[in-house]
Amino acid sequence: MPEFLQVLTYHQALQILEKNMPPRETEYLPLLGCNQRVLASDITSPEDMPAFDRSTVDGYAVRAADTFGSSESLPGMLSLTGEVLMGSKPILRVGRGQCAWIPTGGMLPEGSNAAIMVEYTEKLGLDTILTYRPVAPGENVMQKGEDVSQGEVVFRRGKVLKAQEIGLLASLGLVRLPVFEAYRIGVISTGDEVIPVDQIPLPGQVRDVNSFALAAALEASGAVVQLYPLIKDDYSCLRQALEKAWHENDLILMSGGSSVGVADFSLQAILSLPDAEVLFHGLAVKPGKPTIGARVGRKLIIGLPGHPVSALMIFYTMCAPLISSAAVNQVKARLTINLASQAGRDDFVPVQLLSAPGGPEAQPLLGKSGLMSILARADGYIHLPYEQQGIKGGEIVTVTRF
Amino acid sequence: MPEFLQVLTYHQALQILEKNMPPRETEYLPLLGCNQRVLASDITSPEDMPAFDRSTVDGYAVRAADTFGSSESLPGMLSLTGEVLMGSKPILRVGRGQCAWIPTGGMLPEGSNAAIMVEYTEKLGLDTILTYRPVAPGENVMQKGEDVSQGEVVFRRGKVLKAQEIGLLASLGLVRLPVFEAYRIGVISTGDEVIPVDQIPLPGQVRDVNSFALAAALEASGAVVQLYPLIKDDYSCLRQALEKAWHENDLILMSGGSSVGVADFSLQAILSLPDAEVLFHGLAVKPGKPTIGARVGRKLIIGLPGHPVSALMIFYTMCAPLISSAAVNQVKARLTINLASQAGRDDFVPVQLLSAPGGPEAQPLLGKSGLMSILARADGYIHLPYEQQGIKGGEIVTVTRF
Repeated sequence: MPEFLQVLTYHQALQILEKNMPPRETEYLPLLGCNQRVLASDITSPEDMPAFDRSTVDGYAVRAADTFGSSESLPGMLSLTGEVLMGSKPILRVGRGQCAWIPTGGMLPEGSNAAIMVEYTEKLGLDTILTYRPVAPGENVMQKGEDVSQGEVVFRRGKVLKAQEIGLLASLGLVRLPVFEAYRIGVISTGDEVIPVDQIPLPGQVRDVNSFALAAALEASGAVVQLYPLIKDDYSCLRQALEKAWHENDLILMSGGSSVGVADFSLQAILSLPDAEVLFHGLAVKPGKPTIGARVGRKLIIGLPGHPVSALMIFYTMCAPLISSAAVNQVKARLTINLASQAGRDDFVPVQLLSAPGGPEAQPLLGKSGLMSILARADGYIHLPYEQQGIKGGEIVTVTRF
Repeated sequence: MPEFLQVLTYHQALQILEKNMPPRETEYLPLLGCNQRVLASDITSPEDMPAFDRSTVDGYAVRAADTFGSSESLPGMLSLTGEVLMGSKPILRVGRGQCAWIPTGGMLPEGSNAAIMVEYTEKLGLDTILTYRPVAPGENVMQKGEDVSQGEVVFRRGKVLKAQEIGLLASLGLVRLPVFEAYRIGVISTGDEVIPVDQIPLPGQVRDVNSFALAAALEASGAVVQLYPLIKDDYSCLRQALEKAWHENDLILMSGGSSVGVADFSLQAILSLPDAEVLFHGLAVKPGKPTIGARVGRKLIIGLPGHPVSALMIFYTMCAPLISSAAVNQVKARLTINLASQAGRDDFVPVQLLSAPGGPEAQPLLGKSGLMSILARADGYIHLPYEQQGIKGGEIVTVTRF
């Protein structure tokens, strides 16, 4: 059996891929188009927010000192000079011994420096307000610039923009933002035995699962996906397909063609492209041993195993973290059974998360490697690192959710 | 201060909304269009997978009995009759004392019932294979139908389809699937003080944060979003906008117009629509007390508070779970400080997740309610339930991630 070129550990391979990820251009998009995208530069606030001192309660704008000493038994007494309207600058002024009705969000009128909640006041006649407790200067007021001040860095480059970030940017009037272009990623399935999904397999044939599973996973990572037609195990067809995909994308995921027997011409086809270099072929990883990493110019080709379960597991463990900077979703759970593994190899085991009285449990989904139905039942996977020889049942493990 | 119509608890309101969620039609989409959508019916497998007994290793197809007794010191001896090719039905037959080369995924030839890994064999000359260990019948073979058998329910109605489900469906040749139509959701922002985001606010005005933040959050939940122009606090404008949005959507999120003062004509406008019923107005929830729930025909209108932080928190806690059946992303963490809360009210407190030597910590983001910058720094929230009066620092809490 021919030896692999160079068998790397999971972490070595991940680092190499990371270092060789293609650069991304910046594009400027309207605010809503930036949803779930990644900021390409730091964002500085152009203004103070709020832009004015505003009340955080429904009540009366007052001079705080005028309420000092007020109590239930000895209320203070203020004269009502008018009403602050939402959305406009108050024209009235609060003088000593005066107050003005102010709604939540209203702008504090000149002269006032606090707001007293309506619950702690009482209206006497048309223009007298009793105050039943004192307020401190600034109480119930959001100061100009208190939320965000002008010139402050609001978000750093690399931040994934979600609803609350979009909201904050909207409130600052930032309606066009620099985000990284999505990766354009081509998917090529290969294999003499692989047929299009809408065909009936003859004995010995299987349907092209990888194009669909990888496209779905890539889409969920925010990539722009291009699917290419199926390629037979044939050097010149593969070379031609790779060259086209290489021109049209930043990164190519090729599945099949990486294992013993057909790997030779996969490698040849990659190396025939200009400025091509095989970064690794073969990982001390299960599943996914025959994975290929290659750089062609400033772009990457990753050769995934042909088997759909291995291909998808390698996608989740090695490709997804490079493509998407969204937070990885991990939970702690108690392992239900002993898990053996081989030292000198990183193992990734699909698990089901079960809720149990003592907290979540991780139930490894074993059985013959390569059952698609197992992966479809899994909620995520656990990682048995290189140095470790198995994990005991009852230990707490980290589950990375799909 | 006018009383709210009927103040419900969080769970009561959630149940009422759930019961009144508009029905969803089923649509049939091509497989890739079903990514991250929800199955509208149970899916049954039309065929066995694999469709034939296949080898899970590179090696030799054998009759298991012929290997019995083989060992390192006393290898068995088989004669090689040929090679199984990927993607086609083998024409050869494995008789007693014979074997055939078979690649991973290859179809077991007639007569054979197991595969032996190439690592445990040695080739002598052109057509003799030594076997160094025995294999049991069925060993290294995935049986026909072992992954999925014909007629088996593969996925149940309600399942969210992700990459691994798409992969399994592809392998079964299911290229068009019934999924629920996405909810069409209209977003209407109201308020005299609210201006479009691309304008410079005059004193007292604020930009329309809610349209953007809610649209971003809805998009992430898989809804089809329609934004409507800003509406002033005016009964007839609001009524007209609601009627139009009601015709065009399954659900309307209206923000602003639910608090004291303007709530009256929001309710009036809703009740002027045909077959309209206010389900609740006012929740024992912080933030989000003035939330409105209403049913109009078989559609829903949810009136969110005008304040962006309250509006988004109510969206995450009450609307997102109804709109998306994707798994809620929750983690356990140790609360860093004591948190007071009022019994008889559900409190939702934004937190930051910090990694600490003893496991993740949840750091409440306090400060004046309504700072947008706080929400943008938060990773999720914790829920202090109705019955509970605060949580002590050091306790383990559940953080629901945004």
